[in-house]
Amino acid sequence: TNSNVLTLSCPDTTGVVAAVSGFLAAHNCSITEAQHFDDPYTVKSFMRTVFHPDGHGTPSLAELDREFAKTVGARFKMVHRFHDGRRRCRAVLAVSKHGHCLNSMLHRYSTGTLPIEVVAVVSNHQDMRSLTEWHGIPFHYFPVIDGRKADQEKRIIELFEKTEADLLVLARYMQILTADACAYFGGKAINIHHSFLPGFKGAKAYHQAHARGVKLIGATAHYVTTDLDEGPIIEQEVARVDHTMPPEDLVTIGADLESVVLNRAVRWHAERRVFINDVKTVVLR
Amino acid sequence: TNSNVLTLSCPDTTGVVAAVSGFLAAHNCSITEAQHFDDPYTVKSFMRTVFHPDGHGTPSLAELDREFAKTVGARFKMVHRFHDGRRRCRAVLAVSKHGHCLNSMLHRYSTGTLPIEVVAVVSNHQDMRSLTEWHGIPFHYFPVIDGRKADQEKRIIELFEKTEADLLVLARYMQILTADACAYFGGKAINIHHSFLPGFKGAKAYHQAHARGVKLIGATAHYVTTDLDEGPIIEQEVARVDHTMPPEDLVTIGADLESVVLNRAVRWHAERRVFINDVKTVVLR
Amino acid sequence: TNSNVLTLSCPDTTGVVAAVSGFLAAHNCSITEAQHFDDPYTVKSFMRTVFHPDGHGTPSLAELDREFAKTVGARFKMVHRFHDGRRRCRAVLAVSKHGHCLNSMLHRYSTGTLPIEVVAVVSNHQDMRSLTEWHGIPFHYFPVIDGRKADQEKRIIELFEKTEADLLVLARYMQILTADACAYFGGKAINIHHSFLPGFKGAKAYHQAHARGVKLIGATAHYVTTDLDEGPIIEQEVARVDHTMPPEDLVTIGADLESVVLNRAVRWHAERRVFINDVKTVVLR
Amino acid sequence: TNSNVLTLSCPDTTGVVAAVSGFLAAHNCSITEAQHFDDPYTVKSFMRTVFHPDGHGTPSLAELDREFAKTVGARFKMVHRFHDGRRRCRAVLAVSKHGHCLNSMLHRYSTGTLPIEVVAVVSNHQDMRSLTEWHGIPFHYFPVIDGRKADQEKRIIELFEKTEADLLVLARYMQILTADACAYFGGKAINIHHSFLPGFKGAKAYHQAHARGVKLIGATAHYVTTDLDEGPIIEQEVARVDHTMPPEDLVTIGADLESVVLNRAVRWHAERRVFINDVKTVVLR
Repeated sequence: TNSNVLTLSCPDTTGVVAAVSGFLAAHNCSITEAQHFDDPYTVKSFMRTVFHPDGHGTPSLAELDREFAKTVGARFKMVHRFHDGRRRCRAVLAVSKHGHCLNSMLHRYSTGTLPIEVVAVVSNHQDMRSLTEWHGIPFHYFPVIDGRKADQEKRIIELFEKTEADLLVLARYMQILTADACAYFGGKAINIHHSFLPGFKGAKAYHQAHARGVKLIGATAHYVTTDLDEGPIIEQEVARVDHTMPPEDLVTIGADLESVVLNRAVRWHAERRVFINDVKTVVLR
Repeated sequence: TNSNVLTLSCPDTTGVVAAVSGFLAAHNCSITEAQHFDDPYTVKSFMRTVFHPDGHGTPSLAELDREFAKTVGARFKMVHRFHDGRRRCRAVLAVSKHGHCLNSMLHRYSTGTLPIEVVAVVSNHQDMRSLTEWHGIPFHYFPVIDGRKADQEKRIIELFEKTEADLLVLARYMQILTADACAYFGGKAINIHHSFLPGFKGAKAYHQAHARGVKLIGATAHYVTTDLDEGPIIEQEVARVDHTMPPEDLVTIGADLESVVLNRAVRWHAERRVFINDVKTVVLR
Repeated sequence: TNSNVLTLSCPDTTGVVAAVSGFLAAHNCSITEAQHFDDPYTVKSFMRTVFHPDGHGTPSLAELDREFAKTVGARFKMVHRFHDGRRRCRAVLAVSKHGHCLNSMLHRYSTGTLPIEVVAVVSNHQDMRSLTEWHGIPFHYFPVIDGRKADQEKRIIELFEKTEADLLVLARYMQILTADACAYFGGKAINIHHSFLPGFKGAKAYHQAHARGVKLIGATAHYVTTDLDEGPIIEQEVARVDHTMPPEDLVTIGADLESVVLNRAVRWHAERRVFINDVKTVVLR
Repeated sequence: TNSNVLTLSCPDTTGVVAAVSGFLAAHNCSITEAQHFDDPYTVKSFMRTVFHPDGHGTPSLAELDREFAKTVGARFKMVHRFHDGRRRCRAVLAVSKHGHCLNSMLHRYSTGTLPIEVVAVVSNHQDMRSLTEWHGIPFHYFPVIDGRKADQEKRIIELFEKTEADLLVLARYMQILTADACAYFGGKAINIHHSFLPGFKGAKAYHQAHARGVKLIGATAHYVTTDLDEGPIIEQEVARVDHTMPPEDLVTIGADLESVVLNRAVRWHAERRVFINDVKTVVLR
């Protein structure tokens, strides 16, 4: 559908719902969905409103944005954004050698069941070129040369800007971003980690899980921050394992978890449902 | 908390959120939660709003109700209700001989983790008298005599009215209500069924599940209707079983499922989150 | 690994474990895994034993088979089979237009995480030719012409025999097999059904689930029998849904379930863990 | 049932299944269940065999034990034990002020669905006396006086010995056992921890989970060791939470998880299914 979305957050004060819905009604916009949440811990309000023109001379999104900023936005000290329903979230996918998440995302993208526009795949290896190109998507091989990671990240950022992308998905991209890149992609990069965080951070998470003898393994999708595997969690899921399974079986079972969790997180981000709330997320569903 | 709740449903037209939140703001009520949902299949809107007085001369709930009915309610053909936050949902629990759901609900009630007021327990057997009375709750033994079920149900209804109850919970009550009782308790009686509906309706559901060889068993909480095990589903949950388990093991595993599912359904009903939407429910969380 | 597997079932009498493990020990075979199960309902025993030669002149599998049949097998009226660890289960995958299960299986097969040999893909449509051939697997387009299903099935059976296949996987193959084909593929064909059976049999299962308002949807892998969607269940899984989701969302969420459940069922079948026990299965894990 | 159980572990060598089942057959014992597992990481074998006399002059368990120790046990360097099917696992339950696990265990015990004998409840508080005594079980109030924990633990150990108990269940017992007590109860004490370990060790686990913003919470049953919350894990389970839930809601949801997980772990221990395998467990189901 081509419904528009207004997302906003602000210091928690009363009257937000009334002010926002009143503004939209006064500008000939019909609300079809509205969710809001007040967090008593961070004392912040979050709101997501889906609306469409009601056919009586609704202003353009740019005009709405200007008018909203001056009135409701200013009054409540809001951070807000109007999202055009006709423009899909544009994503660059980053991958290394393990293709299960990429394969799952591209299949969903190609069958129209993941509401994003995949504008490019980038990798530090060539392994996923064939799969990517079979789906008709440009593949960019950006190796890290002589450990000069900043140079390689500069190429990713150039690609991100050239493709007018909104989102970087680390779909099993086995490089840790530099602090500069983390800052650049703040709130715009989603990583999939192969454990139920906060357990088993870092590399070889399934081997850690095997060594500890847990009875369930997990996967976690989170926003990338400079603090490794500590970014705000968007979604998690688990699956049962048992003592008979070597680490290789955990890897195989986990591959499905990772794909499912990453697809959910990207879908919710693309639908503008996810808000960063300090070190956590609010997901308005 | 003593926040009040306004629940409503109406034919789906635009402007509902704005009208309702505008009304509350204009009457000095502060909204702390608001959820709404438009069902394109039944073409109905559902809304739940939590609010409290903002300290500037808010009218009484009765006055709000009258005023709302005349204005917003009339305009949108709403069915609405203002719920006083200081009055808990008052529940009568019905049980036969299996006490696991009753035990779980009474424990939660006694520890303050189930937001209802248990005003009475009613049973067609004496088995649960001791447990009920240990919790300090009146126990009523209403046997079905000579198959005269209507007479027995009349006593339940009298008790329901005398205790000013809002909700009848069939916590493993092994009697099928007559059509008259179903009509009386329409939208006010929640049953727990020991299967993942629509599979395995009727009696001996775990034995049916065992005979079919399913790999997961379930439990379903639903509103009672005259159509047995066909009422609107509020909540469901499942647990894994395997070929080694006789029906008795399924009964034991299922007992936990039933308790968890029933507690969730009753909690959501008591928090005024559940709306009947034709043959289904909308649960605004 | 190249461990061999001995599978057997017999009327339930005592001494089975001792006789089988004694036989293997006496023929210089070392047991690394052994599971057995006595079903008191069907009064049958099931046993799966993984073993390898212990390096002291173990006979060939053919010799073991002959000897076992004459002695232990005859004594206990066993149905038994020795499986050579060097020969993978050979599978023909059948698909129509929905490729999510096929895509998932081929990705796993290509990355070495599904222990089968995919020898061919067969379809009544051309849609999945490109994906199949990208993985380097022969694709066979066998349309049903003028409703002559038996003719088309004859071609599938010829292919099955020519490729020396052991297993037919209906990976969202939207044709109902004739009774003759069901008989031919008895115990050798696995279907994935897009519901939590026994709920929502037949076509449009997600639409049925949406109409009923269930709070969880499921998928079921089962052996194909002439009784539609009534075959012995191998595996099931569910995922949570809610009132906001139209049938299309259930289809998308269900696609992951179907893939996961089908992969598990095929893996267990290929590892010789699944036994048909009347209308149910025993899965020795 | 009054089936006996033989449990054993030994360094991994071939011939274990054949030797054990041969021994039992030669002594007129009929095997009804047998599971074994070889761990290639710790190079150990684990086996659990359920058997009963076949009616032809089976020796007593004591005789079997002696004979087994001299022959098969000695040959394979086994640690083994014959468990009499007529003697239930005898458990002392320890609790502090939170009664949800105790309530759940006592209800199951009283209804015959938890295969243990509850011989006593011990507590450092009086809160659970009434509930315990209502179930007809002796309640022992052993407070920790002036921080002299060793003195209090001595009383628990005396009770343990006097009641001929096999198992101590820490059912939300908010005291950390001393190293001496941990040593005494090695392999005989099960604790329930209110998080999905290894995440959120120590106190206030739900508050930690809330602060981190996880999307699932968990519970873990494990054997007690001197290393806090690091003992071998027997069972784990999780439940979904979201951003709207304060820590109090996590506590309520977690209470059910804790009960279910603890009941499962205690059941499996009592059925002699759980083996300690270095820092992990093997659960033969």
